[in-house]
Amino acid sequence: MTINLKQGERLDDLQIKGYRIIQSPGRFCFGMDAVLLSSFAKVKTGERALDLGTGTGILPILLEAKNKGDFYTGLEIQEESADMARRSVQYNHLEDKVRIVTGDIREAAALFGAASFHVITVNPPYMIGDHGLKNENEAKYIARHEVLCTLEDVLRESGKLLGNKGRFYMVHRPFRLAEILSGMSRHRIEPKRMRLVHPYIDKEPNMVLLEGVKGAHPRMTVEPPLVVYNKDGTYTEELLELYGLESRKEAGR
Amino acid sequence: MTINLKQGERLDDLQIKGYRIIQSPGRFCFGMDAVLLSSFAKVKTGERALDLGTGTGILPILLEAKNKGDFYTGLEIQEESADMARRSVQYNHLEDKVRIVTGDIREAAALFGAASFHVITVNPPYMIGDHGLKNENEAKYIARHEVLCTLEDVLRESGKLLGNKGRFYMVHRPFRLAEILSGMSRHRIEPKRMRLVHPYIDKEPNMVLLEGVKGAHPRMTVEPPLVVYNKDGTYTEELLELYGLESRKEAGR
Repeated sequence: MTINLKQGERLDDLQIKGYRIIQSPGRFCFGMDAVLLSSFAKVKTGERALDLGTGTGILPILLEAKNKGDFYTGLEIQEESADMARRSVQYNHLEDKVRIVTGDIREAAALFGAASFHVITVNPPYMIGDHGLKNENEAKYIARHEVLCTLEDVLRESGKLLGNKGRFYMVHRPFRLAEILSGMSRHRIEPKRMRLVHPYIDKEPNMVLLEGVKGAHPRMTVEPPLVVYNKDGTYTEELLELYGLESRKEAGR
Repeated sequence: MTINLKQGERLDDLQIKGYRIIQSPGRFCFGMDAVLLSSFAKVKTGERALDLGTGTGILPILLEAKNKGDFYTGLEIQEESADMARRSVQYNHLEDKVRIVTGDIREAAALFGAASFHVITVNPPYMIGDHGLKNENEAKYIARHEVLCTLEDVLRESGKLLGNKGRFYMVHRPFRLAEILSGMSRHRIEPKRMRLVHPYIDKEPNMVLLEGVKGAHPRMTVEPPLVVYNKDGTYTEELLELYGLESRKEAGR
């Protein structure tokens, strides 16, 4: 298929079903957090999923590749990112399964209607206000800092958008865990499952994956740690599997 | 020193400073949770610490052995356990440093006064109501189930008992983590540090150690996992150190 790449854009292989994604390194490229969230989240047959702040559409596209859900919607406030996401959807012939909507997370429940999704995924900005390192460009800054939406906005809108027993999946930073779990409970998205991601097994975690269930009773499972690197600096078997890469063992090296 | 042991009691070596503790296997013996909490908690020079639901006094006695705090109080509602704790304090000649008070956690702030401690430790009952396995005896049942005090009681009283920037240390079960973190925040004991304890590195954690600071701002550290067993079933180096036991490596075996 012919693809019109704009200045600064490139087409990256997603290592699954031959799917590719348009990214612009000068703006923003997806990271390990998006890949891990796409495996942690589950979308079942017949379910509709919404990704809040979808950027270039990495989550809906990976979720479609890995799940049997009915339909995937991505909401993105920055028109330039939403345009890249739409072109990636076209490139992968996913128009019947994935739709990208330009709009504001803070008004998502009004936009889509209450209880309109079975599943929500979100890889929100991690940094509070201006406390993080400032990025040179606005797209990156908006993706990483709570400029256009806060954790509270995400949880409030998700609580409205999910039907009863609907599932919420988020990746975030562990330093905000207390706020996250309190906020989820407050918005009736009861935390049910958590996994911490450690760069090395003896280091502090730098990501946390969370699953909440709308209207559920409090009782959660903390899963075994997800470790990124072996002691020798190579990727762990589990991480290679999550990236859809052959492990060195399987490759016979 | 002569020691009067009552029927069913025994005197156990605590592996530190020659201290011993009176326990009654038929009633309740301290577990790994108490030992891990005694190392996770810190009591600094000049500080007063309170252990809520102290049982046989294991926490105040271990904390005294490991810290330079000014004074350690243990609060226990069951008179028989409090009596054992007092005899252990005497046996170890700690009357000037440790006091055991018989009383109810639910009235602790009224008993001791608001903002009367710098540090609180607590190894509370883990099980909600009657959902756990019932133990054959009442002492064990009270220690493990929220019969005489709930998590909410513990957090409410601790919030009152701690002075500004006072520290709260608790060991609990990970399945209640969302309730715990929400409740701590609600009672202004901001979660600041957390460590999950995994039996094996690739298994779910079965304990969580938490530090909260009264009146602090939200931002927490999640520490590397604490692993109990190596793959071959032997204790890990870190666990042996926490128990004050020589590691096999150091012993040259």
